[in-house]
Amino acid sequence: CLLTGSALAQSSVTVQGLVDLSVGSVKMSGDKASTAAITPGGMTTSWVGFKGVEDLGGGLKAEFALTAFLRPDTGESGRFGGDTMFSRDANIALAGSFGRVSLGRDLAPSFLPVVIFNPYGDSFDVSPLVLHWYVPSGGFAARTWANSAAGDSGWSNEVIYSTPNFDGFSSNMHYQFGEKAGDTGTRNIGLNALYFNGPFALGAFYQKVQVSNPTGGSAIVDATAAPVSFASINNQTAYFVGASYDLTAAKLYATYTSSKNDTAAGKQMDDKIYSLGAKIPAGGGDILLAYANTKRNGSLTANTELKRDTMSAGYDYNLSKRTDIYGVLMSDKISTADRATSVIAGIRHRF
Amino acid sequence: CLLTGSALAQSSVTVQGLVDLSVGSVKMSGDKASTAAITPGGMTTSWVGFKGVEDLGGGLKAEFALTAFLRPDTGESGRFGGDTMFSRDANIALAGSFGRVSLGRDLAPSFLPVVIFNPYGDSFDVSPLVLHWYVPSGGFAARTWANSAAGDSGWSNEVIYSTPNFDGFSSNMHYQFGEKAGDTGTRNIGLNALYFNGPFALGAFYQKVQVSNPTGGSAIVDATAAPVSFASINNQTAYFVGASYDLTAAKLYATYTSSKNDTAAGKQMDDKIYSLGAKIPAGGGDILLAYANTKRNGSLTANTELKRDTMSAGYDYNLSKRTDIYGVLMSDKISTADRATSVIAGIRHRF
Amino acid sequence: CLLTGSALAQSSVTVQGLVDLSVGSVKMSGDKASTAAITPGGMTTSWVGFKGVEDLGGGLKAEFALTAFLRPDTGESGRFGGDTMFSRDANIALAGSFGRVSLGRDLAPSFLPVVIFNPYGDSFDVSPLVLHWYVPSGGFAARTWANSAAGDSGWSNEVIYSTPNFDGFSSNMHYQFGEKAGDTGTRNIGLNALYFNGPFALGAFYQKVQVSNPTGGSAIVDATAAPVSFASINNQTAYFVGASYDLTAAKLYATYTSSKNDTAAGKQMDDKIYSLGAKIPAGGGDILLAYANTKRNGSLTANTELKRDTMSAGYDYNLSKRTDIYGVLMSDKISTADRATSVIAGIRHRF
Repeated sequence: CLLTGSALAQSSVTVQGLVDLSVGSVKMSGDKASTAAITPGGMTTSWVGFKGVEDLGGGLKAEFALTAFLRPDTGESGRFGGDTMFSRDANIALAGSFGRVSLGRDLAPSFLPVVIFNPYGDSFDVSPLVLHWYVPSGGFAARTWANSAAGDSGWSNEVIYSTPNFDGFSSNMHYQFGEKAGDTGTRNIGLNALYFNGPFALGAFYQKVQVSNPTGGSAIVDATAAPVSFASINNQTAYFVGASYDLTAAKLYATYTSSKNDTAAGKQMDDKIYSLGAKIPAGGGDILLAYANTKRNGSLTANTELKRDTMSAGYDYNLSKRTDIYGVLMSDKISTADRATSVIAGIRHRF
Repeated sequence: CLLTGSALAQSSVTVQGLVDLSVGSVKMSGDKASTAAITPGGMTTSWVGFKGVEDLGGGLKAEFALTAFLRPDTGESGRFGGDTMFSRDANIALAGSFGRVSLGRDLAPSFLPVVIFNPYGDSFDVSPLVLHWYVPSGGFAARTWANSAAGDSGWSNEVIYSTPNFDGFSSNMHYQFGEKAGDTGTRNIGLNALYFNGPFALGAFYQKVQVSNPTGGSAIVDATAAPVSFASINNQTAYFVGASYDLTAAKLYATYTSSKNDTAAGKQMDDKIYSLGAKIPAGGGDILLAYANTKRNGSLTANTELKRDTMSAGYDYNLSKRTDIYGVLMSDKISTADRATSVIAGIRHRF
Repeated sequence: CLLTGSALAQSSVTVQGLVDLSVGSVKMSGDKASTAAITPGGMTTSWVGFKGVEDLGGGLKAEFALTAFLRPDTGESGRFGGDTMFSRDANIALAGSFGRVSLGRDLAPSFLPVVIFNPYGDSFDVSPLVLHWYVPSGGFAARTWANSAAGDSGWSNEVIYSTPNFDGFSSNMHYQFGEKAGDTGTRNIGLNALYFNGPFALGAFYQKVQVSNPTGGSAIVDATAAPVSFASINNQTAYFVGASYDLTAAKLYATYTSSKNDTAAGKQMDDKIYSLGAKIPAGGGDILLAYANTKRNGSLTANTELKRDTMSAGYDYNLSKRTDIYGVLMSDKISTADRATSVIAGIRHRF
């Protein structure tokens, strides 16, 4: 009776999420000292939310997702102060034999290729590639390194068309409205492509970013005023190619990313990132090795080449299909600062 | 085992919500240009939350609702910046043969009559009546038209007594505490009445508003300083009558709303809104036609009559009981600005 | 099919919460006038959230909790403006025969002893002990009495080790990282112990607080500038002993709490709180009587002893195991202000 009623009422929506917390000593290159800390999301950014699928008949489905990032070390919502509540997912889609069309806040074109082609996946704490591409270094008012990606790992006001899977090949086409009155030329566009064939996988993205996220009107790269400001960048074109091959004894990863940035005043900055990685099964878990290297050039940085390299070595052990524990050692070096080392150990639980 | 335990633990609460997103070109009268945009809540404001009912025996039930509005285009919570998290519902009630008493944040007296007696229901984007009554036009710092209703579509710090249903007739009596120390005279009060008899329905509300929402201490109509400010209004008395008749070939709607506003300095402003509507079944969906007209007079507007009329023509098609798609064309005209046209197409999914 | 899939997907997480709302006239000693109000959380602070347990085999379990406080009178999230979203719980734990280790935001050492050893439990509105220990009096900019506890009822960035239960005895050891770069000496530490033996129970805590909550960088006691400021306090050591005995005709409670505060400039303030309580079964519910008395001394208050006593008399009646209604009369007296009386009646529903 009550049980049945409730189960039926619940049948269209599931509560899902992930809690990841680690303990460690964190110091990025450029930081003055190490910080002993509980860090949220060592391996995956923690989140919680609601998802549902409705079968509309004739092969057509309606799908929605409302999911929120959170920082379980303090209980704060979002990935950072000023993030929106449902910045991970706030979208609805129609899916069928034609593919899938979604509206709302959803992934940026760069997200899937970047997280699929490195052994640390979507770790915004210890994946060298993800750190270089998405995560600024240093506190907000004292950046030591601005991330390369413009316009966030998720896009608001977005339409995505996803193709069906053609023998392992699929592609997602992304469009974000700029939502400026009288201006339809300012917007974000991009696409990615993924190909899986047995042990081999290939991925690529291209994106052109002019609009900030999760809400508009901010700098697309980094609004920090000092000492490193790229707030004047108003246009970024980026592309990426990545591949992985599973030799069974080890899964190997390689990627190359390029971003070209322009300011209204005609200055520019080019970032080139390459990354290598390996995932090696051992002792019931995986040894995870990853390296990323960025070279930053252009008139915006006074034509002085800036370099950064970061490497992580870790071990991830599954307690179950849903719960794993891990330990990671990371070394980070910016050309203008000393090498710094972090070490974290944590637990990740999916529900 | 786990399943049973979980299902039992879940039996007292359900997760419910609605995601509505549309794509369109939006321009209200007074806007300088059209904006191409993803708009959240084209037909219904998106929301998600928790509801539960407990049978206490003897015909008595405890009911609660905690539901949050959200904007899935960006993932932001609330209807606007500064809205409270659970501004849609945050209340608990006891219900029985005597009727129902609820405490907390809940509907304003005006809400049910306004959304029941127009063919676009609770659309805060394209229902002419809802737009005129509840939604200010123009950006926050540049209002072109202030909405007529004072004190929001939901009231905080509220007690509602709802009568049982007497042969189709029911009434809700609302009281919102002003929560000012030493002052019990400043509060919101109101009531509404609804009558359903076969194809015919009748509704009315009366409300007297002195307290802002969702939190107190703000202007009750519109806090915008310029160019249109009604921040000095501290008292509004409003009433409404509406009717609908279902001819099967079409359901017809008509309403009349009057609001009288006073300022501490003795100025006043009177709004009179009438609206007409029709819902016409066609092709498995409904053609929706609606019109609203407001006349604004009084010393607060320098005794110059301001006028606004808005009309919407749309089509709503059900993909299932829970999911529909729609397209709407809207025309809006303020007497001091040019006529403007919007067009949106979207999808709404209930869960 | 859909039902089964959903029920299975749901099996690992439950939605839980509590809504408590009351109507009353509230005046604390030092307030200029009574306020007629809907108050959230008369008996328990309202909350909603997600909890889950996973059996990892071998007696090992993974547990998580993400729960949010809220104020259902207005729909606001958190206990106060600036609170974090999941300030009640945002943690993950591994539990087994060794005990339990948790990471994240969780209880402070003082919480369980304080709420277990008074008849009003975790009421932040009418439990005299909880009010004196945790809740400041007067509005934010016009404090009339600063609470005694430093560092909140929950701690962020925390590791807790909980012992197994040894014949009724258990203990929790708490450590909160200060998360200051290059400084591991600034942190919160504490522990509590609980002992249950038939009708008799005993509890104690010790804690040393240097870090503010729910986020760091604020004053640990009260940041209000005027007229009562303890923002310069940077170190508090506190301890507590409490006992209860259930005579069947009545359950009796007694506690003693001491806090010693230091400022960087060498000033200090000592609070001593004793409380007494009784829970007397009557008429199917419980009569609840409670009293707390605080004496405040030290150079920070110019060596003038400040005193406060508060008493509450109420009745709590269970409509079901999950829903109760209550009425409470409270009298509050600060030595520098007149005695003030509050009366509230409310309903509490667990789900």
